[in-house]
Amino acid sequence: MKNTLFKLGAVAAASFAFATPAFAQEAAADAVGGGTAYILNTLLFLIGGFLVMWMAAGFAMLEAGLVRTKNVSTQCLKNIGLYSIAGLMFWVIGYNIAYPGFAEDSLGLFGMNGTVYSMQGVGDADLDTGYSVASDWFFQMVFCATTASIVSGTLAERIKIVPFFIFVTVLTAVIYPVVVSWEWGGGYLDSVWGFSDFAGSTLVHSTGGWAALVGAIILGPRLGRYAADGRVNVFPGSNIPLATLGTFILWLGWFGFNGASQLAMGTVGDVSDVSKIFVNTNMAACAGVVVAIIATQLRYGKADVTMALNGALAGLVAITAEPLAPTVGQSIVIGGIGGILPVVVVPLLDKLKIDDVVGAIPVHLCAGIFGTLVVAWAGDATFVGQLVGVLLTMVWVSVASGILWFILKATVGLRPSEEVELAGLDLAEIGVEAYPGLANQA
Amino acid sequence: MKNTLFKLGAVAAASFAFATPAFAQEAAADAVGGGTAYILNTLLFLIGGFLVMWMAAGFAMLEAGLVRTKNVSTQCLKNIGLYSIAGLMFWVIGYNIAYPGFAEDSLGLFGMNGTVYSMQGVGDADLDTGYSVASDWFFQMVFCATTASIVSGTLAERIKIVPFFIFVTVLTAVIYPVVVSWEWGGGYLDSVWGFSDFAGSTLVHSTGGWAALVGAIILGPRLGRYAADGRVNVFPGSNIPLATLGTFILWLGWFGFNGASQLAMGTVGDVSDVSKIFVNTNMAACAGVVVAIIATQLRYGKADVTMALNGALAGLVAITAEPLAPTVGQSIVIGGIGGILPVVVVPLLDKLKIDDVVGAIPVHLCAGIFGTLVVAWAGDATFVGQLVGVLLTMVWVSVASGILWFILKATVGLRPSEEVELAGLDLAEIGVEAYPGLANQA
Amino acid sequence: MKNTLFKLGAVAAASFAFATPAFAQEAAADAVGGGTAYILNTLLFLIGGFLVMWMAAGFAMLEAGLVRTKNVSTQCLKNIGLYSIAGLMFWVIGYNIAYPGFAEDSLGLFGMNGTVYSMQGVGDADLDTGYSVASDWFFQMVFCATTASIVSGTLAERIKIVPFFIFVTVLTAVIYPVVVSWEWGGGYLDSVWGFSDFAGSTLVHSTGGWAALVGAIILGPRLGRYAADGRVNVFPGSNIPLATLGTFILWLGWFGFNGASQLAMGTVGDVSDVSKIFVNTNMAACAGVVVAIIATQLRYGKADVTMALNGALAGLVAITAEPLAPTVGQSIVIGGIGGILPVVVVPLLDKLKIDDVVGAIPVHLCAGIFGTLVVAWAGDATFVGQLVGVLLTMVWVSVASGILWFILKATVGLRPSEEVELAGLDLAEIGVEAYPGLANQA
Repeated sequence: MKNTLFKLGAVAAASFAFATPAFAQEAAADAVGGGTAYILNTLLFLIGGFLVMWMAAGFAMLEAGLVRTKNVSTQCLKNIGLYSIAGLMFWVIGYNIAYPGFAEDSLGLFGMNGTVYSMQGVGDADLDTGYSVASDWFFQMVFCATTASIVSGTLAERIKIVPFFIFVTVLTAVIYPVVVSWEWGGGYLDSVWGFSDFAGSTLVHSTGGWAALVGAIILGPRLGRYAADGRVNVFPGSNIPLATLGTFILWLGWFGFNGASQLAMGTVGDVSDVSKIFVNTNMAACAGVVVAIIATQLRYGKADVTMALNGALAGLVAITAEPLAPTVGQSIVIGGIGGILPVVVVPLLDKLKIDDVVGAIPVHLCAGIFGTLVVAWAGDATFVGQLVGVLLTMVWVSVASGILWFILKATVGLRPSEEVELAGLDLAEIGVEAYPGLANQA
Repeated sequence: MKNTLFKLGAVAAASFAFATPAFAQEAAADAVGGGTAYILNTLLFLIGGFLVMWMAAGFAMLEAGLVRTKNVSTQCLKNIGLYSIAGLMFWVIGYNIAYPGFAEDSLGLFGMNGTVYSMQGVGDADLDTGYSVASDWFFQMVFCATTASIVSGTLAERIKIVPFFIFVTVLTAVIYPVVVSWEWGGGYLDSVWGFSDFAGSTLVHSTGGWAALVGAIILGPRLGRYAADGRVNVFPGSNIPLATLGTFILWLGWFGFNGASQLAMGTVGDVSDVSKIFVNTNMAACAGVVVAIIATQLRYGKADVTMALNGALAGLVAITAEPLAPTVGQSIVIGGIGGILPVVVVPLLDKLKIDDVVGAIPVHLCAGIFGTLVVAWAGDATFVGQLVGVLLTMVWVSVASGILWFILKATVGLRPSEEVELAGLDLAEIGVEAYPGLANQA
Repeated sequence: MKNTLFKLGAVAAASFAFATPAFAQEAAADAVGGGTAYILNTLLFLIGGFLVMWMAAGFAMLEAGLVRTKNVSTQCLKNIGLYSIAGLMFWVIGYNIAYPGFAEDSLGLFGMNGTVYSMQGVGDADLDTGYSVASDWFFQMVFCATTASIVSGTLAERIKIVPFFIFVTVLTAVIYPVVVSWEWGGGYLDSVWGFSDFAGSTLVHSTGGWAALVGAIILGPRLGRYAADGRVNVFPGSNIPLATLGTFILWLGWFGFNGASQLAMGTVGDVSDVSKIFVNTNMAACAGVVVAIIATQLRYGKADVTMALNGALAGLVAITAEPLAPTVGQSIVIGGIGGILPVVVVPLLDKLKIDDVVGAIPVHLCAGIFGTLVVAWAGDATFVGQLVGVLLTMVWVSVASGILWFILKATVGLRPSEEVELAGLDLAEIGVEAYPGLANQA
């Protein structure tokens, strides 16, 4: 449970006890004063928050690098737009749904804490909570934005800007916050099933993944992607160093994503846990890269760089459900298995004619499910409890997203005209080419 | 007043009082020991400092992305060069002018603390100041560099490297520090007018903006920009993802820019304020993006990506004068109004034939003025006091810059020959093309 | 000596003493409780660690920007791959070799702490050490990766992926850790010669530089680089803004590289030292840039942007051996001399037909040696002691690397076929072009 209020309330209380002049020398050394703990906990949220905010740039660069030249400007706009919408919607209503303060006898499926625009306590400094409410809100908000980033990658190059932004609005205002409330908000999955998702393999990555998968099916593939004879046309990414940069940004941001999900560093134990999370997170990504390189080298005779990048990300997603409990060795195994998922799943999706432009479905959905289930091995959870969490998220996000995609398709329409799509969305939707000074080949 | 010495001296003193064994439990929880407060205050400067230093990369990428291919290398050199010059000059003399320690009966218009090269106290650890002098110096230095970055964008593609670097030298050594001394240095605007500029909407952004505006007028527009028949030729930016990356970098850096301008996080109240600043800063930028997207979509039928980027930046500049006092809702309003300024002002400047290559004037000057004045609504300042600050800055920076630009024009000359400008500055000034492996279209 | 265990053990002990209720007010203000010091020390490692991890992206962008278009994807893969291999190997065995806990009567040339896979204490929180072992491990690991990054730049465009990755494996598992053990591990150079290398001018940068130099000699230059008539063919970098971005990333990361090498910020003195390191590091880089710009302007009549970038990096490498002791003025001198090294050494290497694609040898090896020796002037070390450290590192790394390069040449082979090299490694080795949507000129 990522319920900071609950967890840190207890921490702060403990710190108060130690803060009396009569403390024993050892206790004094181990505990820190309530004020200092409050500051350090808040600082963790702020550092973690700006690192995860930075992931928005990572997704933007990754996706801008993996789409074709004619759709790059559109992808840039979508990414800065979705982050902005997520910020606003998570303030308007999202946070209130995500952390509703469920009553004890509630089933914990839906609740709301206050009304719209009524986010309480931002700016207040209440020592009892153990951290600044504003810092916590900021940290939670950037997770919400991450969920939306996942969708934009899969659906790139063929969805109009307006329906995409409307989808993001609902996703970040309602669909994602409801999933969060079940677990980090102390709701159904947490209280009934003991579901465990430390930093969001399911809550963030699978949620984004399901929304993307359903969208990809309803939207259909890019024109010309799948030939009538079953052949798959490769549409290579337009800028590999940009995609590499995006991956490094995401990797960096993940130290905040997983590390700051410890939610506290006001005690020796907490900051040590954050440190271990850094190591495990890093090693899972390392393993994902190495496995993806070896796998593509063995299978295709070439070490595919985009697979290496996706290997890093899949390793990171896989370790996200439980980055603290595993040993370093276990983290390497988890990340390594994660890293092989894109190599296996990408061809599979193509066989199903599901067109996932950047590989977000294997990376975020498949590795997210795997990472969630593997907690039963390397963490403190039951396989059944984890499975219930995966399935409930699948049902809710797929159904809610599906309905929304169909409504958008029937109203504003999802796809541009064939002419626009072939010419690239940049010209018709944005009016700004990505690289106008450089002659385009195709 | 951003006078850390004054503010933190008081904080540290307060902490000492609490640090005795006789403190009450509650006070102990709220305050932290003087040593710990010193460390945390210093840490805020260091984190804020490296985030703002990173903004130099943001400006470099933004500008490299928005100029034409043939001037990209020059823009890169100018940006890394101006940061370096700013660092050196702020050490040689700038800091001593910015924080002169005005005498009480002084008018507070100009002073100097020591002589050149005499920066005191770097490396000393004096508990009475409440923070490390070196950390404060570093934090102040990166603000100085930001001011210079603003100028390079407006004047891109048509100013030679040597006069540009000479201008930067004087700007960072004298022109900017004088403005800072009036407010953060406790001078005229602070002591007489109660002027309020938390993190530098006027001191940093408008200062850069005025210098850029005067430079653009004296320098004249790029060749071919304004046709004889009044038509404006669009010179599209050469690399949109790079400009997007630059904007994300600036957004990230702004958490340091505004957040660390709280100047302290050694108390529960301070770190809570920093947290609220993070939220307000983020939301102003979100609002700026969304408003710019909607405005361009409604006005032109296309959601212009460069306007969205400038909308984010204008929202950030607007909230910079007072990121703490406003509610989240007010921050959204302030950022949203900021976001519409580029959409309105860019065509206006073109009508006046003022050629602002990257839109720095609407973003930094116009949003900076707006943000400063709006403190009278959402902060603790009078409209008249704010207006005086805006006008005094205008007069000083415009006159000083204007004189300097004219001297440079009359001596080393400002513009390259027409042949060089048409061929691009990269060949003649740098000798290194930006993308030599890729065929240039024009 | 960068032996955190030794240094922080003492710090923590001191803190315990102060933490009793009977402390004097002044002592209380200066010291912080053992728990708080532990947290702050650990936090320094975590922040420093993610900043140095980010340098991996900096090297990737710098190198991707400086190689030709046809080898960019390969360079991206090499960089994300080498970071991942370094992470795994430093866990498998590297750390145990680097910090062996030499016995007092040992010569301190080689030792091992435990067996492979036996990294102790990650995840433990032991107050006596004064910091989290995991945080220290993470911080040390990213330094190991930096060493490997240096090699990839020099040898770009003409070495196959497989032998490169094998070399990195041995470099990060054994060659680099042995050098570290001599100094930071408390071995021969530290105990016998009083060698001083604060953050790794020799241990990291020269080690990478020697490995790169020997590799460049054995590998030979790129095809067509040196004409039969002695003329040097310029192969311009393909993407200057990317190289600029990489340099800014490295500069940012260096605040972690040097600053966090203080290894502690749990006292007022330590955090003040970290602050001074930030300033000195920044100023050395500023000076490097300005000197490189002026030097190229005077020598060639053009201010070469890649020289300015390398000037920044050389200034940073030069100050790395001792970023704390020098005054700001001394730091500027050291960085400025560093900045002129690439301007002087690059033509020299070309005369020797040693083909260093990105200029890593002048930047990391030459500036690293200079920075190490200059500690005798601006720090606390003897010239002879420093020279012994430089020479011992040269002998070990050159011999070990040389043997390894020869074995690789004789077995898997180092270079691709001439056809592959001329067509670019991206097609044959990776199968993914870097910019497929943009027409290539050559």
